[in-house]
Amino acid sequence: MEKSLWHHILQVRKKSPLVHNITNFVVMNNSANALLAVGASPIMSHAHSEINEMISICQSLVINIGTLDEYWAQSMIQAAAQAHQLNKPFVLDPVGAGATHFRDTTLTQILHSCPTVIRGNASEILALAKHNISKIKGVDSTAQSNEAIEAARSLTQQFGSVICISGETDIIISENKEIHLKNGNALMTKVTGLGCSATAIIGAFIGVIEDKIEAVVAAMALTSIAGEIAAKTAVGPGTLQVQFLDKLYMITADEFTQHLQLEII
Amino acid sequence: MEKSLWHHILQVRKKSPLVHNITNFVVMNNSANALLAVGASPIMSHAHSEINEMISICQSLVINIGTLDEYWAQSMIQAAAQAHQLNKPFVLDPVGAGATHFRDTTLTQILHSCPTVIRGNASEILALAKHNISKIKGVDSTAQSNEAIEAARSLTQQFGSVICISGETDIIISENKEIHLKNGNALMTKVTGLGCSATAIIGAFIGVIEDKIEAVVAAMALTSIAGEIAAKTAVGPGTLQVQFLDKLYMITADEFTQHLQLEII
Amino acid sequence: MEKSLWHHILQVRKKSPLVHNITNFVVMNNSANALLAVGASPIMSHAHSEINEMISICQSLVINIGTLDEYWAQSMIQAAAQAHQLNKPFVLDPVGAGATHFRDTTLTQILHSCPTVIRGNASEILALAKHNISKIKGVDSTAQSNEAIEAARSLTQQFGSVICISGETDIIISENKEIHLKNGNALMTKVTGLGCSATAIIGAFIGVIEDKIEAVVAAMALTSIAGEIAAKTAVGPGTLQVQFLDKLYMITADEFTQHLQLEII
Repeated sequence: MEKSLWHHILQVRKKSPLVHNITNFVVMNNSANALLAVGASPIMSHAHSEINEMISICQSLVINIGTLDEYWAQSMIQAAAQAHQLNKPFVLDPVGAGATHFRDTTLTQILHSCPTVIRGNASEILALAKHNISKIKGVDSTAQSNEAIEAARSLTQQFGSVICISGETDIIISENKEIHLKNGNALMTKVTGLGCSATAIIGAFIGVIEDKIEAVVAAMALTSIAGEIAAKTAVGPGTLQVQFLDKLYMITADEFTQHLQLEII
Repeated sequence: MEKSLWHHILQVRKKSPLVHNITNFVVMNNSANALLAVGASPIMSHAHSEINEMISICQSLVINIGTLDEYWAQSMIQAAAQAHQLNKPFVLDPVGAGATHFRDTTLTQILHSCPTVIRGNASEILALAKHNISKIKGVDSTAQSNEAIEAARSLTQQFGSVICISGETDIIISENKEIHLKNGNALMTKVTGLGCSATAIIGAFIGVIEDKIEAVVAAMALTSIAGEIAAKTAVGPGTLQVQFLDKLYMITADEFTQHLQLEII
Repeated sequence: MEKSLWHHILQVRKKSPLVHNITNFVVMNNSANALLAVGASPIMSHAHSEINEMISICQSLVINIGTLDEYWAQSMIQAAAQAHQLNKPFVLDPVGAGATHFRDTTLTQILHSCPTVIRGNASEILALAKHNISKIKGVDSTAQSNEAIEAARSLTQQFGSVICISGETDIIISENKEIHLKNGNALMTKVTGLGCSATAIIGAFIGVIEDKIEAVVAAMALTSIAGEIAAKTAVGPGTLQVQFLDKLYMITADEFTQHLQLEII
């Protein structure tokens, strides 16, 4: 798998997929810049009046519920259903899953369309599984990695999604694979929206790469390594955001390969 | 008071308050980054369907009416009422007070919930007092600092709020105190949302610090000093924004203490 | 014309026009920062309840349909009509024209108010003309510059607007003039919202400069030259955005004049 990841990065640059984003207000600018930096073309659109047309012209869809309201929830549910019907891959970022009843019921409706990928932190993956899969036992609110892996497996089985549990180690799970990525830097958690940028970048990769688990691994590795290299010379979170975008755009095969810390379980 | 300010900054870093923001589209990204940089955890959420639950899990609330519309106005009024009922501290940034009838009537409804802190420029504080307190005499549209101080005193008496009049000198007023802060740099006015970031940071401090006037002074001093230091090496407003976030995150006790220009009236 | 352009830039700095923006979520922060950097004062507001009042206090209006929905479409149509009635200049950025039926019908209604300026890429200008002017022949979806020039001429004739076709060469067209600008740098296309920032800056210039085609040329030249100079030392798109804002704020008469590549056809 290691060898094909850089090839996937080049494919995204070459094919420049059109990625439709229904994402949150806080990170729209970051996400669009991250997509441009990896070579994709972002579209941001949420109007009920045009969602179906937008889905039909894009290669993939990104749904991020960070700042959802009733109107936007409908946009997301409609977009997911349309993507499912047209066989367009889509990634779901269940920001704040478990925090409110509204988030959980919206997520349940989006899950009906079987996301190609779900990317969230351990708490979110646990909350998602707990709310949607009856077999899951009650879990502590402090999310444990092992419990999150169980939850991810359940979600994979039920919805056929590749699950990415993001954290110090990113864990990517499909029906028959489990991959651990140990790249990144703690300073990245001090910049808003780097996780959401990762989700957007996953959106670009699943729009181009056939093997969806490889697409997710390539996207997450690219994001984490770019952040890790940027953090080496960043003074703080301000310079990290700037240098992250530079590195996402300029990263070389050597830099990528030398930093990659991948473990296939 | 000088001695306790740095202690308050450390407290925010240590306790990492969860701060709920209903703020404007322009500054959501800055505000979230500013909150992360001082050690707080931002939540941005405005859906009527989840506001009450969100308020209940957060330590404090930030309301900024910059880009309000009818839906968001209701979100803000509802959130303020809920915060008031649950005794959660909240800060109001009355952006553009006095500019339109809609802003003024929305602000009146938010004021019913007695904001813990109100932070605005002299014009906004004057407009707020003029519209809501009958005793205030008519004031010129060109806001004078002295008139604004009178207006701030009236608002403090009526609503019990700590008032922060931001400007070249920031003036912070409670029922029995008046404090002047002379930090900052003129270039900060050329970066959108640094004032709104200051409001968000106040939100973090009132979520952790019991003495609300000290919380406001610490938050404003931290913001202004970080901007002042960043401006020394900034080329223009682009680099200022970046270096401001870096400094907010990295500032030391020595830097803070050596720059602080505080006057207790 | 070359000689008056720098004078126009100084006029904007001196008069600091209040510019009302109804723009898209992705670029609100960039646009506000770009307006501040050139010396203007940005207002962002879209509530139906206050649009008419806002228009009346501003010198000009910017409409950008990037992330429109039904509510925002109404805001834009109402604002355009009000600006037209009060003789306030306004600029339209028809982002994604031709992509969906909803965009096209919204644009048709905005066009009724005869925008002072329309700025878009070749595809958008073609789509706008095709949808609104029956005389235009069917055009290929891959936009050709020459066809776009024909489309721009038709739009100018029908609506009296100055048209700016942005691209590697920016082409600015009025009823009796055609001007080509060859500044800029390809890296600028890798930063989201630089085109939208150009539109916002046009908004500032038409609020102050009487001769509208000169206002557009000055705004576009300033934007492109600032980007071109910033790109010389930028590492990638992250540093480009930062240095672009610095340069927009700090550019000198010499830098501007030495870089200007203007051709009057």
